[in-house]
Formats: sequence, C-alpha cells, structure tokens
Amino acid sequence: MSPAPPLKYAQTHRQRFLAELKEFIRFPTISAQPKHDQAIRNCAAWLANHLRRIAMEHVKVIPTRGHPVIYADHCHLPGGPTVLVYGHYDVQPVDPLGEWQSPPFEPTVRGEDLYGRGACDDKGQMFVHVKALESCLKSQGTLPVNVKCLFEGEEEIGSPNVIPFVARNRRALAADAAVASDTQMLGPSHPAISYAERGSLNLELEARGPKHDLHSGNFGGAVHNPLQALCEILGKLHDAAGRIAVPHFYDRVRKWSERQRLRMLHTGPSDEAILRDAGVAKGWGERGFTLQERTTLRPSLAITGIVGGYQGPGVKGVIPARALAKLNIRLVPDQDPREMDRLLREYIARLTPPTVRTTVRTRSSAKPVLMDQSHPAMWAAALAYQRSFGASPVFLRSGGTIPIVSAFKEVLGIPTVLMGFGLPDDAIHAPNEKFHLPNFYRGISTSLWFLAAMGATKRRQIPPMAWESEWSVAYDY
Amino acid sequence: MSPAPPLKYAQTHRQRFLAELKEFIRFPTISAQPKHDQAIRNCAAWLANHLRRIAMEHVKVIPTRGHPVIYADHCHLPGGPTVLVYGHYDVQPVDPLGEWQSPPFEPTVRGEDLYGRGACDDKGQMFVHVKALESCLKSQGTLPVNVKCLFEGEEEIGSPNVIPFVARNRRALAADAAVASDTQMLGPSHPAISYAERGSLNLELEARGPKHDLHSGNFGGAVHNPLQALCEILGKLHDAAGRIAVPHFYDRVRKWSERQRLRMLHTGPSDEAILRDAGVAKGWGERGFTLQERTTLRPSLAITGIVGGYQGPGVKGVIPARALAKLNIRLVPDQDPREMDRLLREYIARLTPPTVRTTVRTRSSAKPVLMDQSHPAMWAAALAYQRSFGASPVFLRSGGTIPIVSAFKEVLGIPTVLMGFGLPDDAIHAPNEKFHLPNFYRGISTSLWFLAAMGATKRRQIPPMAWESEWSVAYDY
Repeated sequence: MSPAPPLKYAQTHRQRFLAELKEFIRFPTISAQPKHDQAIRNCAAWLANHLRRIAMEHVKVIPTRGHPVIYADHCHLPGGPTVLVYGHYDVQPVDPLGEWQSPPFEPTVRGEDLYGRGACDDKGQMFVHVKALESCLKSQGTLPVNVKCLFEGEEEIGSPNVIPFVARNRRALAADAAVASDTQMLGPSHPAISYAERGSLNLELEARGPKHDLHSGNFGGAVHNPLQALCEILGKLHDAAGRIAVPHFYDRVRKWSERQRLRMLHTGPSDEAILRDAGVAKGWGERGFTLQERTTLRPSLAITGIVGGYQGPGVKGVIPARALAKLNIRLVPDQDPREMDRLLREYIARLTPPTVRTTVRTRSSAKPVLMDQSHPAMWAAALAYQRSFGASPVFLRSGGTIPIVSAFKEVLGIPTVLMGFGLPDDAIHAPNEKFHLPNFYRGISTSLWFLAAMGATKRRQIPPMAWESEWSVAYDY
Repeated sequence: MSPAPPLKYAQTHRQRFLAELKEFIRFPTISAQPKHDQAIRNCAAWLANHLRRIAMEHVKVIPTRGHPVIYADHCHLPGGPTVLVYGHYDVQPVDPLGEWQSPPFEPTVRGEDLYGRGACDDKGQMFVHVKALESCLKSQGTLPVNVKCLFEGEEEIGSPNVIPFVARNRRALAADAAVASDTQMLGPSHPAISYAERGSLNLELEARGPKHDLHSGNFGGAVHNPLQALCEILGKLHDAAGRIAVPHFYDRVRKWSERQRLRMLHTGPSDEAILRDAGVAKGWGERGFTLQERTTLRPSLAITGIVGGYQGPGVKGVIPARALAKLNIRLVPDQDPREMDRLLREYIARLTPPTVRTTVRTRSSAKPVLMDQSHPAMWAAALAYQRSFGASPVFLRSGGTIPIVSAFKEVLGIPTVLMGFGLPDDAIHAPNEKFHLPNFYRGISTSLWFLAAMGATKRRQIPPMAWESEWSVAYDY
C-alpha cells in the first residue's frame, strides 16, 4: 500500500504546487465583507477549474444563499471505503491592515514560511489534500479510496449555508469518514489530531439611547451614554475570578476525571507554551484549570469587537446614539448553543438599565463536538503522520470550532479526522498569518499515506451514489 | 446710534449671504482628520479673501503648527472701544455618514433650515458677524467700533495652537471685549447669553495585551482580552448613582447657593426640554441635581469612542491585541484640568489588572470659565438681542467648552460675550446638523446692534496697535 509514485510526483512538483497555492491565496475571499463577493465567486470558479484539471470528477460550483459550495468526487471503487475531504476557501478579515509586513493578499515567502491571509487557515491546509489527490491521479490515474470533496466559502462566518446543504444531501455525501485540515500541530515535529472542538455562539449586543448623536458638553451628565452603558454591561459578563458571570452558564459543563485531565496535561501544550504562543506574560481565567483546559474543557466568552462613537484620529465631543459589541462564546460538552443563547439574553436583559435599550442578535451557532479516538480513520491518520513526520500524533482537544464537524457527526454519522498542519505561531485570524512550507510538503505526504491507509481499511457497504436533489438548487435550503 | 443703513443692506443681500455661507460650508474642514488638511488651507484662503473683499484690513492667514489662524481688523477709532470677534472655521467629523439625509458638505435648505456640517457650529454663526461687518463697511464705509477678527481652524480639537498664539500676541489682540457666536438660544424666540462654560479634558485610554491579535477559540479563556479589560475599567468610571467614581474628583467642585440654583431653575431649560432635545425618555446622572445643573454646574465624563477588535460586517473570531477608548471630561469651577488628569490617571492605574497594560494620553485640556454678567459688553449684547429678537436674553451657563474663552479671560483680561444663535435641535456634532435661517438673518441684525452699542460704551484707553512678533512666525510658538 505504499504510495511511492504519488510521493515522487509530489516531490518533483513542489515549486509548481507553491506557485498554485500563491495564486489561490491572491483571491481576497473575506466571507464577512460583501465587497468581496465577486472575489469569492472568482475564487470558487478557479478552484473548480483546478479540480477538473487534476482529474477530479463531477466538479460543481453550487450556489447557496451565501457563498458557493464546491463539490467534486472520484469514486471508482464500488462498495469501497469513502473519504469526504472538507476545507474552506474563505478567510478572515485582514484588519488591522497596518500591521502586516507584506500585503495580506500578496503571498510572500520569508524564510521557510509563506505569508498571506488564508495561507494556513484554510487555503494552504485544504490545498494539501488537493495536491495529494493530484499526485495520485496524475501518477497512477486512480485513487486508493473513493473520495468526495466538499469545499465551502462561509466557514469564517459560521457555515450558515453548508450545514443545511449537508442535511439535505446526506445520501450524496455519504462516506466512512471525513478529513479536514484546519487545526494545529504542537510544533513542527509534533503532529496532533484534534478529537474535540468547542462549539460556538456568535452574537451582537447593541445598546441604544438618544435618537441621534449628542454634543458631549451640552448633554454630558444628563443622558446615559449608550457606549458607557454597553461597557457597564460588558464589564459584568465575567466575574472577578475570570468566570463567565451568566447565571447557570456552567450547569451543563461536563466534569472530567482526574485521569483524563492528567492525560491532557501530558499530551497537550503547557501553560508556558500557550503563553509564549499568545505573546503574553501572564495567563488569565478560571482558577483551578490549566490554560489548556481553559481553552478546551471550559467555555469562554470573548468581546471580539466594539463599534461605537468616534473612531477616527483626534477628538470628537460626542455621546453616540448607539453602540454595538460583537461577542464570540465557545461552548463545551454538554452545553447547548440554544440554551446558552437564552441564558445570555436573560442576563443581558437583567443588566440593562432603564435608561438605554439593548438588543441581542444571534449571528451563528455550532454545537461542541467530541470524536471517537478509536475509529479506524483516526488510526489511519496516526499511521500517516508516523510515516511522513516520523512521529506519532498526540490526540488533542482544540479550543476552536469548525461548524461542519458537528454536522458531519450528527447528519452523516461520521467522524472528522482533524489532521492539522498549522503551527501555534501561524497567527491565524491575525496580521502576518503564515503557513510553514515544510508542513505544506509533509502534509501532502501525510494525506497520501492517509488515503492509502484508508483504502486498506475494512471495506464497509456504503449506499450507491445518489443525488437526493440537484445540487444546483441548493440555494433553496 | 441706530444702524439703519447697514440693517437695510443686510436685508437687501440675504440671498447672496446665504449663497456665500453655502460656499463656506462646502469646504470639508474636519480638523481632526489629516486627510482634510488641504481643504482646511483652501478654506482659510477663501475666508481671508472674503474678509479682504468686504474691506477688512490687515488680513492675514497665519500658519501654526496645526491649522492656520486668520486675522483681520478695522481699527479707525484711535482710543475707541475695540471688539475682538472670534469664530472657528473647522468642523466636527461627519460619521456616521449613513445617517445624513443630505451629504454633510453639500449644504441644503429644507424648510427654514440650512443643513450641512458646520452650518451652525461654527461657520454659520461666525458668518453672522462677517456679514454684519460687511453690511457696515459697504453701506457706511466705516464701523462704529474698532474690530479685530480672530478665526481659527482647531476649535474642535481643543484649540492647541491658537491659545499659545494669543498668549504671544496679547498686545496686538488687545480689546475691551470679545464676542463669539458658538452657543445656543433656548428657542427661536428665546435668546440667551452664556456666561459660563465647562472646561474640558480629552484623553485616550489604551489597553494592551498579546503581541498580536489571537484566535478567540484557541486562546479564549486563557488570555485577558484587552477589549474586555478596557470595558471592565470603563465600567468602573461611574458609580451606580451616576457619579464619576474617580476618588477626589468632586473635592473642588464649587457649591452654589440655593438662591443661585433657583435662578438657574427659572431661566434655564427644564428637564422636559432637555429630554426632548436629546430624544430620550429618561434622564440619567447625579441625584439631587436638575438635568440643567448636571450639564453645567456638575462635571461629566463621556466615552466618546471605542476602537477595538473587528468592526466590519459579520463575524471575526478574534481577541484583539489592543483596544482604545476616547474620553471627554467636562470640568466646572474650581476644578483644574491638570489635577483632574492626575486623579484619573491614578484611578486607572489602580483599576488596571496585572494581565494587561494601560496607557493614558492627554489630547487637550481647557479650564472652566465664568464671566461677569455686569460687564458693559454683556449689556450691549442684551440690548442688541432686545432690538433684533424683540426679547431680552436670559443669562445661561453652557455645558460646552470653547477653549479660547478662558485664554481671552486669563491672557487678555477680557470677557467673551457668548452670543448664541444656535437652537437646541441643531444637532451640532451629530448627523443632519442645521442652522435655522431666520436666526442667521436676525443674528446679523443682532451683531449690528451690538457693534453700535459697543461703539457707544464708555471709551477706554487701549494700547496702540503693536505686533509683539510677526504673525508669520506664529508656528514657532
């Protein structure tokens, strides 16, 4: 089952693979910002053409209410095992733009790293699998396993359209396991597989007061400033001990045995490593938990942005009519996003003074997910890492959220192998995001070994290809 | 002493005056934003030419470290009384731009109002005096009093350069009284003269944490979010009773007698009127004081803007590396800006947790000012209002700050007659700023009557015109 010819092909074409990845990164596919819609359509078309060129089949750009989904497959082993490859071609916003050393959409190699927005999250990591598929198909004309690809353009905004799409097309997407590379290793030679993801809840909290902005001299002291009221509410979302102060918020948080916590302590990053990656001198948060536990076993609430008042240079003497905060809550088993949403709304209503009005808007939510570490696909991935990195991966919990993973588990009934090739200092979601190029090339080998190992797993009967509905009407969901 | 020919001239040329005011408003003279520097220079040149055209003398555009000062005079009555006319041609920023019904720099008449940024604050109100001077000079060839004009381009950013300029040129600017129209009436037929202004202190408070923005999933719960820390600090700047929580902040606030407070209650706006103007249902702030008192006799602290995290549309899962708040504090007698600055800094240092770093930057400050209501210039102004509006003005305290007023008092030893023609609903500093056109025309009459009445006041010996230094090197101050 050695993938020797594909490995050789990948080795030979490294320079071209890098050039193509740069081309991919150049599309400014910021899903949150409508001004980039055309770039997203262009990128989706580019990616679909690319999949056709490498000999993937049934390639489709499927419109949704939001950004398109791209599907492709290569299923020539009837009744054989099937891998569903997931990735996302959208990226995070780039501000603060001034802090980038090279422009975010002009991918630049410095040392062994490729810098650019999406270099790691997730264009670089999804391209690992695309290039592995190409290396098989172009060197051998076939794949060792049936493969379906599902690439979306809305992961960074909570996957609002691909999840109902998966639900509607569960038979067409049937597979034995999914693989997604959108997570981290512990270090360049310490591979890791995430078996847990936190859930997430994205909300906006708006405070409103006067009908229009007021002069801060003429009205200061007589009118409750909505920006001040917002801060007063936000200042009460955590208690002095760093816990989320929403009543009953921790009621359903699962307790873990000392044995499980000790194992995490040994396999996961130390407090020191997390502080170094964060670039802070001191940790913060819930007492009685390591920093690793605080970011994986425990929920968190981040104020991710505030829009209120004057934000330009200099001074403006104003009491703004309204102010808005963006909140990102991360959830853990067994918290339900809908219940936590309700608890937060009740608490905010209680904190709101009679002098302002507040509104909470829910933007997206995803359940936390835990996967079975003993699934054959996990072992296939562990073997693949061993072959390509010369080290066995540790099984880790991730603090992040990939919304599709819970949909794959609940709708398709399959685990997702979270085969990360990112590094802790890749600055994803931040300025100067990068991808470590040795990980790009080793990632391709890992993917090749994984496909080969999956092809050798015990074959399971899966239903024949069936389109439950035309993909092209997917935007009706 | 009736200014009949000038009044007739002003009546005849109303349409042209309005057209010229629109031209003046079209310059986007936002002093806080460097991108408008050229517009400010263009506007200064336009205004200087305009003053020359109406026959003012010694017209100069004087550079400073910031935006230019414009000087002009007409002093043909040796030893006669002299009026210093002050105004500012810079304006506030215009955001939120989407809320303007017509673009801020395309002045538009709707009904009896002229809409545009600066229509009231202060281009329209300073133009009142320019047009009064023109009406005298063009109808009679002379003025009833010596006049010096000082127009600046930095009032909205705290007058950082004009105040040292005044200090350096105190003999050249010598006068018996200043007049400035940059305040409000109580209503269209209720004139008012402000005899008190609050001081001001503009600060920025920055909180910093990680070296760069972090992923809110990977680090949420383990790192103190600077935006959260900032809110936690800002949430503690007021106590639950609406008082500023900075220790010793009220120690020097002057206590007023029941008699003085009762007089204010009768002459100033009621709580209902202030709430109506603000467009809020409920007042807020310090117990035991009327809303008028809270905005004039009592200090206030407004968060005028927060810059932190992601502010675009949609969602970004980020813990920002830093967050910044803009604060505007208004001070009352006998608070000293420097002392209040120190108290606030000490309090913020005490509130700052060890998990973030904070920095306070002072952007500008101005002392509170109280003027003598019995000064002859005050009576001249009262008479002028009586003639033009048919009503005597009430003497009011203003909650706002015109930094130059304290410099005129302390450096030149003269009071400033704050002869307001704005209305409470003029939305200064806010979208849809307007100027009530009947007040523009009546304002010109008021100014004419005022100049005439000042010409009839007891003449006081003032020093001869003397340039203490060349104006052109004013930027050295």
